Amino acid sequence: MSESLSYASEKSGLPPGSLVHVGEVHKHEHKITVIDYDKSTLTNRTIKNIEELLPYQSTDTITWVIIDGLQDVSIIDAIGQHFDIHALVLEDILNTHQRPKFEEFDDYLYIVIKALSLADEFNVEYEQVSLLLLDKFVFTFKEKPDAIFDPIFSRLNNDKSHLRNLGTDYLTYIIMDTIVDEYFTLQDTFDELIESVEDELLSDPSAQTLNTIQKIKRELIFLRRSVSPMRELLASIQRSESQLLNEKTKRYFGDIYDHVIRVTEAMESYRDLIAGMLDIYLSSVSNKMNETMKVLTVFASIFIPLTFIAGVYGMNFEYMPELKWRWGYPALWAVFIGVSVFLLRFFKKKNWL
Amino acid sequence: MSESLSYASEKSGLPPGSLVHVGEVHKHEHKITVIDYDKSTLTNRTIKNIEELLPYQSTDTITWVIIDGLQDVSIIDAIGQHFDIHALVLEDILNTHQRPKFEEFDDYLYIVIKALSLADEFNVEYEQVSLLLLDKFVFTFKEKPDAIFDPIFSRLNNDKSHLRNLGTDYLTYIIMDTIVDEYFTLQDTFDELIESVEDELLSDPSAQTLNTIQKIKRELIFLRRSVSPMRELLASIQRSESQLLNEKTKRYFGDIYDHVIRVTEAMESYRDLIAGMLDIYLSSVSNKMNETMKVLTVFASIFIPLTFIAGVYGMNFEYMPELKWRWGYPALWAVFIGVSVFLLRFFKKKNWL
Amino acid sequence: MSESLSYASEKSGLPPGSLVHVGEVHKHEHKITVIDYDKSTLTNRTIKNIEELLPYQSTDTITWVIIDGLQDVSIIDAIGQHFDIHALVLEDILNTHQRPKFEEFDDYLYIVIKALSLADEFNVEYEQVSLLLLDKFVFTFKEKPDAIFDPIFSRLNNDKSHLRNLGTDYLTYIIMDTIVDEYFTLQDTFDELIESVEDELLSDPSAQTLNTIQKIKRELIFLRRSVSPMRELLASIQRSESQLLNEKTKRYFGDIYDHVIRVTEAMESYRDLIAGMLDIYLSSVSNKMNETMKVLTVFASIFIPLTFIAGVYGMNFEYMPELKWRWGYPALWAVFIGVSVFLLRFFKKKNWL
Amino acid sequence: MSESLSYASEKSGLPPGSLVHVGEVHKHEHKITVIDYDKSTLTNRTIKNIEELLPYQSTDTITWVIIDGLQDVSIIDAIGQHFDIHALVLEDILNTHQRPKFEEFDDYLYIVIKALSLADEFNVEYEQVSLLLLDKFVFTFKEKPDAIFDPIFSRLNNDKSHLRNLGTDYLTYIIMDTIVDEYFTLQDTFDELIESVEDELLSDPSAQTLNTIQKIKRELIFLRRSVSPMRELLASIQRSESQLLNEKTKRYFGDIYDHVIRVTEAMESYRDLIAGMLDIYLSSVSNKMNETMKVLTVFASIFIPLTFIAGVYGMNFEYMPELKWRWGYPALWAVFIGVSVFLLRFFKKKNWL
Amino acid sequence: MSESLSYASEKSGLPPGSLVHVGEVHKHEHKITVIDYDKSTLTNRTIKNIEELLPYQSTDTITWVIIDGLQDVSIIDAIGQHFDIHALVLEDILNTHQRPKFEEFDDYLYIVIKALSLADEFNVEYEQVSLLLLDKFVFTFKEKPDAIFDPIFSRLNNDKSHLRNLGTDYLTYIIMDTIVDEYFTLQDTFDELIESVEDELLSDPSAQTLNTIQKIKRELIFLRRSVSPMRELLASIQRSESQLLNEKTKRYFGDIYDHVIRVTEAMESYRDLIAGMLDIYLSSVSNKMNETMKVLTVFASIFIPLTFIAGVYGMNFEYMPELKWRWGYPALWAVFIGVSVFLLRFFKKKNWL
Repeated sequence: MSESLSYASEKSGLPPGSLVHVGEVHKHEHKITVIDYDKSTLTNRTIKNIEELLPYQSTDTITWVIIDGLQDVSIIDAIGQHFDIHALVLEDILNTHQRPKFEEFDDYLYIVIKALSLADEFNVEYEQVSLLLLDKFVFTFKEKPDAIFDPIFSRLNNDKSHLRNLGTDYLTYIIMDTIVDEYFTLQDTFDELIESVEDELLSDPSAQTLNTIQKIKRELIFLRRSVSPMRELLASIQRSESQLLNEKTKRYFGDIYDHVIRVTEAMESYRDLIAGMLDIYLSSVSNKMNETMKVLTVFASIFIPLTFIAGVYGMNFEYMPELKWRWGYPALWAVFIGVSVFLLRFFKKKNWL
Repeated sequence: MSESLSYASEKSGLPPGSLVHVGEVHKHEHKITVIDYDKSTLTNRTIKNIEELLPYQSTDTITWVIIDGLQDVSIIDAIGQHFDIHALVLEDILNTHQRPKFEEFDDYLYIVIKALSLADEFNVEYEQVSLLLLDKFVFTFKEKPDAIFDPIFSRLNNDKSHLRNLGTDYLTYIIMDTIVDEYFTLQDTFDELIESVEDELLSDPSAQTLNTIQKIKRELIFLRRSVSPMRELLASIQRSESQLLNEKTKRYFGDIYDHVIRVTEAMESYRDLIAGMLDIYLSSVSNKMNETMKVLTVFASIFIPLTFIAGVYGMNFEYMPELKWRWGYPALWAVFIGVSVFLLRFFKKKNWL
Repeated sequence: MSESLSYASEKSGLPPGSLVHVGEVHKHEHKITVIDYDKSTLTNRTIKNIEELLPYQSTDTITWVIIDGLQDVSIIDAIGQHFDIHALVLEDILNTHQRPKFEEFDDYLYIVIKALSLADEFNVEYEQVSLLLLDKFVFTFKEKPDAIFDPIFSRLNNDKSHLRNLGTDYLTYIIMDTIVDEYFTLQDTFDELIESVEDELLSDPSAQTLNTIQKIKRELIFLRRSVSPMRELLASIQRSESQLLNEKTKRYFGDIYDHVIRVTEAMESYRDLIAGMLDIYLSSVSNKMNETMKVLTVFASIFIPLTFIAGVYGMNFEYMPELKWRWGYPALWAVFIGVSVFLLRFFKKKNWL
Repeated sequence: MSESLSYASEKSGLPPGSLVHVGEVHKHEHKITVIDYDKSTLTNRTIKNIEELLPYQSTDTITWVIIDGLQDVSIIDAIGQHFDIHALVLEDILNTHQRPKFEEFDDYLYIVIKALSLADEFNVEYEQVSLLLLDKFVFTFKEKPDAIFDPIFSRLNNDKSHLRNLGTDYLTYIIMDTIVDEYFTLQDTFDELIESVEDELLSDPSAQTLNTIQKIKRELIFLRRSVSPMRELLASIQRSESQLLNEKTKRYFGDIYDHVIRVTEAMESYRDLIAGMLDIYLSSVSNKMNETMKVLTVFASIFIPLTFIAGVYGMNFEYMPELKWRWGYPALWAVFIGVSVFLLRFFKKKNWL
Repeated sequence: MSESLSYASEKSGLPPGSLVHVGEVHKHEHKITVIDYDKSTLTNRTIKNIEELLPYQSTDTITWVIIDGLQDVSIIDAIGQHFDIHALVLEDILNTHQRPKFEEFDDYLYIVIKALSLADEFNVEYEQVSLLLLDKFVFTFKEKPDAIFDPIFSRLNNDKSHLRNLGTDYLTYIIMDTIVDEYFTLQDTFDELIESVEDELLSDPSAQTLNTIQKIKRELIFLRRSVSPMRELLASIQRSESQLLNEKTKRYFGDIYDHVIRVTEAMESYRDLIAGMLDIYLSSVSNKMNETMKVLTVFASIFIPLTFIAGVYGMNFEYMPELKWRWGYPALWAVFIGVSVFLLRFFKKKNWL
């Protein structure tokens, strides 16, 4: 089911700031993972209760909290209270219909992006990932447990990694980079899909081909809504003057910006390519109809005159001298063949055969 | 009746500042409701006369005045005089063909937005809601009495509500948020409509389908005119430096801004989806015609040659040896069947059967 | 005749600043009307000679000079000399192919706008109105005498009117407002036209319908050229820092700006609606062709096989046992009817009947 | 031959600053004309050698040097050395594939524009005109000798002309104005062409009409490339703070700016008109095909059933009672006529006749 | 294989800053050429090891290092360490899916552009060229050894060349200019291709023509992605305030900027031309179908009535007086001929013959 079909209006009528989970409900248990690290230490554990995070507030280590699953509103509420997060931000975290955005607050930054993956050939799956970047904390809120952060975990385990030496802004960068890298996988899939449809169009276009084209187009329309706000988002991050973002780390965000532009431009190209494919499809339908017409015309135009001639000599007039001629019948066959040959040549010259 | 069909020129020729109600006339009585509240008190009453409002000018409470129905020009005129509102603003309040806009004055802010609801499947109903935001007063002018403010009333009744503690700017935010939330309901209806038309297109497209597509397209065109100026409106509010707007409340308006962008983007997607649906429809018409052509061609191409052969042996030549042959007639049937089988195979190979 | 067809190049080759009337020549006598007023007095007379204006230069009243007809270049020339107007401005006043624009000079402002009216159903008539706004004078230059300023005259006669108390900038505002108000009349006409064409498209589209659509489209193209520069024009007036424009009056120009935007947006909608109407028309042509095809196919496919069978029993073979059978002929009719019924059912199932 | 077909790459591989003439070679002799003037004197002569210009450098008169023909690279080279012109400017003067542009240097301004004229009905001829504006010199470089500057010459001869009293910036304005005025002639030709094609479309559209539409479209595409950069060019001149441009003269450039915008907008309209004409053409092709189909259907649908009936009574069954009936044959004619009349009425009702 | 089909996602999952070669692998040996020059000396040699470059760091000469082939990651790594290049830059050099961009660092500038060449008729070959511009060093990284820099080598050999006297910024300009000059060759090829397709469209359009149009369109889509970011790139260079760029050299970059705009505009024109060609193609398909229809209609409409008449006189009624008439048969031929002539005239009048 494409994103647009879940209900955007679920929450309408509720007071602003009401914490209600809006969006597709995933039937997984929610899970809270805490990764705490600095240059020398790394701990990784699962907690049940936000209060367990409080001791970390007084340490100098970086604490990354991953919340998988948004059904339990009380967790979000607790985070809001303990870390002093604005009610509207909490509300946005719970509503998975957000468009990607970046919001600056005095003590924290709020980022929403979409993790994209391919469910099956034409269906892109969207997962909203919200990030809260604090001085010593990073919170990530995901709709469901999955493996998209695994590469980051393995990098963290390596204590020589750049990541272990830098702050929460660099961790945020790594998380966003990992998510945006997945966009390229999607881009490759579309490249292949489009190429295979182009082949089909040239060899044997059918109504099915049109259907595929339309489905790709549809997915691209929704995809654009998730990807194109990323440009603005990343530009805002680079322009931001928040103290939470190190000047050097901003260059890294510039790298993601480049990636997003490349993906966006690729999607623009797909749109143009698809428009071209539709033109080919429509003209192939016309060509086929023309082909049908030619077959009919050739058959009808050859046999209708012959049938007329046969009809003439089937008439019962008393005085029809040809009928008595000794060579009338064979002569008529000569006429039949002559007319046919003449017409066949005529159609040949018109390139209809 | 769509908005564009009421007469935009009704007032042309009148001097500017003339107070005349321009727009669809609703046959309801006009009604003035006054809600006066602060942290501890809340009164709600109906008044007949603007002069009854004057005592509230000297209190510290927030007074929300809701005018339902714009037929009685004298009410607007009275408000203008007692609260010192610019003549052009009064004129705009009475003319329901305004586009959404935000205007700043020294002592008050003027906002026009459109409340949208769905009359029936394809007809969006537009109601112009004008807001005057003063220091201790909020005026809302609506075209007719309806229930769109009911959720706000019930929230006001709760004396622990955020709303009871904050100023007229927050009340204005709540009113606008309530109206914009309804846009999502509309968006959901369009989502469903478009999905059902897409299904119809794939299963059994008819001229009726095209009609539906066209109606959706039409509604979207008018809808865009009401929704897209909201972006600019909300951006202006956020940029505004008026003392009537609290810095903290502006972030709330940013939340409505996000909602409006989401609705706008959804409508852009619908436009693209509908363009794609038209392409499918047109190609389905071509495909159907091709189908018809093939049936004709197969029938004609098989029977026309056979008829010719039958015609030949219906001729009355004296010397037609085949006619005397003992097995002539059965042999001819063999020819008939042979020709048919050959042609059927030919068409089969062409994938026409 | 549409504006674009009069010759844009008439003046090419002449030195800049040459005063030559370029544009459609109206066969009316030119006429100069002078209206002089202040709070207490109002005189209205017709003069023959620009020199008659000189006495007004030393009074404190506001003098509005209306020149109807641009054939007499000497008048423009005289105004230029007595009121010190730039040669290029005089040249522009005489050339009625200007696009709407606003130019600021130290002692005066120059405004060109187009008065639009409807000659007949599809033909919009364009009249260029040039305005010179001086400290105590307003000059309006029109191509021909007509009634577009009548509402202003009657308002001036009312000595309690706002207009009588304010300066030349307010008079300029009133003139422009009166002209722009007429755009709404045009908008209403287009609304009706488009609705009637839409009805025609659904009931009985013909080549004539396409023609009408095309004519509307054509008029819209030219209309846009006259209306859309008005946005920029009015934005420039509002941004202007000229001492000739009172800060309070600028808000009134903001009102015209809103009107122009509404008209422009309506015209954008028309463009989209018309694109949709073309799609419907084209698909209706295809549908009609399909209808024709189906009739042909049904007739041909039913009778061609029957004719073949009749042809078979018209053959003259000596040994055709069926011909001797007592019930051969009625049996054959049974076959005829059976085949027809079968095929009719087949086509019924295909929804072709 | 349209501009785009001469070779853009002729110079690739050469070092930058190499003086090589790139573009269509005109087989005319090059010619250098020098016009030297001030308020009281005017001399006009032809020189062979750039060194002859050196004496003018020490006078106070304005010297206008017109170079017709760019084949002799040494002339350009000499100008570059004696007047200290940047190598890249010299290179650009020689390359006639430039797009219109304006470049500011300390001691001179460099302007490239395109002079347009109509070779024959559909072929616009492009001539690149480069201008160097110095303190007391104006150089114009043209591809070939022609008459485009004749109106300027005759104006210079008039010693009361404005032109004789003002500086090199005003001369530059006059040159550009003269060239841009020619654009209006072109615009008029396009107006006429488009109107005649529109008439043809309504009366008798043919494949030839489509061809004409396509040619106009093609020319417009190339035209746009020459005209639209002029907007930016003239805006830059107006924004320029060069001491070579008098503040008063800049207003004159504003006048050319207006002209260019009018031409550009006209060309945008043509594009829209042509899109509309294509739609009409395509629908006329469909309508014609439908017409053909109807004729075929009417003929076939009337005679095929009749032929079947005739076939029935041509069968040779022994027991066919109708054949013996005295009024069988006339009765059958009644049937024939009855069926025809019925079908004709049927088609009449369908509006096919 | 078009650029978009190599895998954009090859690196996803790796930590940022990982040096991995991403892109098409060229099977050439990598090669490092070092050209060291100043006004008086020029040496040119091939090295195997980046350490061999270190002595040049202490000289005043300009050192141009050309790396052909990116397979050996250790080379890039060594350059990064010895010349202190940011890890993300090294990563970008190795990833050949970059879009053209310009990045400023304190001690060096990083530029990525695409060298384009034509592999065969429709296939553009893309080579990514990365440039590092340091104070005394220029590094160019190419995907494979080829001849694109040959014109620069020969110019360097000339010790009077401008190039020998100027800094690394001018060398960078020369390199970029050489690459962009090749774009014009490409432009010329497209000009020719499009002209030949236009001829084919007018003389004998076939499905093959459509294919060619589509291929050109496809190439243009990809081309645009490589060329259009160049505008921004060159504008950024001109705006840059880096000390590595001499103010005078920036004007030269302005020249490349002009070239890029010309190429970009040419490509925009091609897009419009191609859209026009598609319209012609589609209408030619419709016209052909109409042609086929007319042939069928003429044949069928003439012979079907005649066949009916022949059928009538083939009936076996006992009382058919015409059959006994002496001149019945010849009279019928007269009817046959009469009907044919009448119908031929009818179709002639309809312009179908």
